Amino acid sequence: MDLMANTLLSAGASPAMIHSVEEIPEFTPKALGVCINAGTLAPDWLPGMKLAAQVANQSKKPWVLDPVAAGGSSFRLKACLELLALKPSVVRGNGSEILALFKGCVDSNSKGADSVHGSSDAVEAAKSLAQQSGSVVAISGAVDYITDGDRVVCVHNGVPMLQKITASGCSVTALIAAFVAVDPSHAVEATASALAIFGVASEVGMDMARGPASLRTLLIDSLYGLDEATALGRVRINRL
Amino acid sequence: MDLMANTLLSAGASPAMIHSVEEIPEFTPKALGVCINAGTLAPDWLPGMKLAAQVANQSKKPWVLDPVAAGGSSFRLKACLELLALKPSVVRGNGSEILALFKGCVDSNSKGADSVHGSSDAVEAAKSLAQQSGSVVAISGAVDYITDGDRVVCVHNGVPMLQKITASGCSVTALIAAFVAVDPSHAVEATASALAIFGVASEVGMDMARGPASLRTLLIDSLYGLDEATALGRVRINRL
Amino acid sequence: MDLMANTLLSAGASPAMIHSVEEIPEFTPKALGVCINAGTLAPDWLPGMKLAAQVANQSKKPWVLDPVAAGGSSFRLKACLELLALKPSVVRGNGSEILALFKGCVDSNSKGADSVHGSSDAVEAAKSLAQQSGSVVAISGAVDYITDGDRVVCVHNGVPMLQKITASGCSVTALIAAFVAVDPSHAVEATASALAIFGVASEVGMDMARGPASLRTLLIDSLYGLDEATALGRVRINRL
Repeated sequence: MDLMANTLLSAGASPAMIHSVEEIPEFTPKALGVCINAGTLAPDWLPGMKLAAQVANQSKKPWVLDPVAAGGSSFRLKACLELLALKPSVVRGNGSEILALFKGCVDSNSKGADSVHGSSDAVEAAKSLAQQSGSVVAISGAVDYITDGDRVVCVHNGVPMLQKITASGCSVTALIAAFVAVDPSHAVEATASALAIFGVASEVGMDMARGPASLRTLLIDSLYGLDEATALGRVRINRL
Repeated sequence: MDLMANTLLSAGASPAMIHSVEEIPEFTPKALGVCINAGTLAPDWLPGMKLAAQVANQSKKPWVLDPVAAGGSSFRLKACLELLALKPSVVRGNGSEILALFKGCVDSNSKGADSVHGSSDAVEAAKSLAQQSGSVVAISGAVDYITDGDRVVCVHNGVPMLQKITASGCSVTALIAAFVAVDPSHAVEATASALAIFGVASEVGMDMARGPASLRTLLIDSLYGLDEATALGRVRINRL
Repeated sequence: MDLMANTLLSAGASPAMIHSVEEIPEFTPKALGVCINAGTLAPDWLPGMKLAAQVANQSKKPWVLDPVAAGGSSFRLKACLELLALKPSVVRGNGSEILALFKGCVDSNSKGADSVHGSSDAVEAAKSLAQQSGSVVAISGAVDYITDGDRVVCVHNGVPMLQKITASGCSVTALIAAFVAVDPSHAVEATASALAIFGVASEVGMDMARGPASLRTLLIDSLYGLDEATALGRVRINRL
């Protein structure tokens, strides 16, 4: 939550982290977008996650699902599939997470939040999943893929060392929620833009990084200081 | 909790983060001061927060309340008002939080933990709240105001970028608890000093910061390394 | 959890943070080792901690216990002793924590996670505790001691400023779990190696650190970038 909140603050958004069913119905409508992250999943948090999705839907606010480690256990997979059935605007996962959602089965090789598949291994699964669910599906990895089931957009920004920073995936999902909140009718474009901008910030940060911890610091600083010229000059998005 | 604990460690205090009712009665009396932060509010944490306040009172230990996002929902406001009724030595919030406590009503424009009011908008509310509650009330913002209902002390230290660091407000509240623990009979002075020292540390850090994440690092380093001459030379406290 | 996960990622391990009894039985057997940390102890988390220990035992996977603030309260001490009875491969604590486990009584001077005893004060207690429990016992401090009840190995790496970084002790315990997972039949050697490597990384980081927060960043970067020559040249391990 800490890195997610700092990512949002540095990008100009205003995060609030709420998980209690007592305040979700009242607070959620004030938000412009919602991010539901399954990382901290436990039985007592799941009702709040579902309620937030339902209230976001009723309030016509976009919401984004991060199915963290979806293939890690039956309980987690079931919870993520139930959340997916509530029709998020966007689902963002790594290759293993998107494949687990598509196949609907636990991955015996799962390492939890770390992917054991490349993002390109999951493109066809993502297309099918998008068609079935009606959600935009994004796979992050060496190349990021974003699809609405028809188009597939590729983002070539980012650095491999992001995988050595815990919650970097969660943080880009939060940034997707902020971008989609600004332009909910263009969820594919907003998602690709968020992934590209986060990737650009990591590339700029990488120039001075000495390792994962300094990259984490530089990533947030770069995101905060990113100007339009740098962003436009570095963003690499194309159609598959 | 992470930034709060590191703030306290860098300032020479010894933090312990405890939320379970099973150990609050036994551990709280060993502490010199208690900080109760509503940020992680949920129904199952509220009994522990109230119990910690009660045990601190019974043990004659000062305790400080951070009413995070008090105006964000009815549940949160009610909880913060119940905690306030347990008579903290000090309440520290931003303008919106102090106004919500004073008015006793939810803020329809609430952005959660981020303030939508300037600190100066809440000075009269803070004075009244201090008179009603018997607590010292501190509003942090561009200028920090600290009042016991009679005197109003202003602190002019700090940098705007602190608002881009999640939990920076929580961390200064924790530092207030540490300062008040050292001198509980002078809660106004201790609170103003904590706000000023945290602000000075941010100013020193700002000289080298490239953005919010490096400022966060430099803030803690500066707090750790702050010498008396720098502190005295930079602190800007006056009466309103 | 954040610093623990980043420590493991920077060292080449793949962490997953799971606390729900719903997924512990299914996920734990996929892990090569388990770290159970009592820092976030509450009655609703304890069943998950015990279950993880039992499943690790059944799966013949090593597990490591961090009895955070064991002497802080009766509830915490009882929980840590119950976990210890489940026979971890390794227990790692500071002087006060190991003494509390050995004596089986609450420490009236406990400051929570911060030690009020030097590591050398607890060596005899650690030997007895290792003999009674069958676990390798490690005491971290100015000198780290690791014992199986017979041999005592000393590690002289590390810097005092680590004590000013919250969760640095938790993080070295997580690293011990990763090292023991690689070589479970040599738990003393693996534990000493993890403590030494973490200490070396802090020494390398200290060369550029300006305070606890930059040291935290540099520690992770150094751990990530540590080469064999630096490690071998700096590691200082001997027999007592």
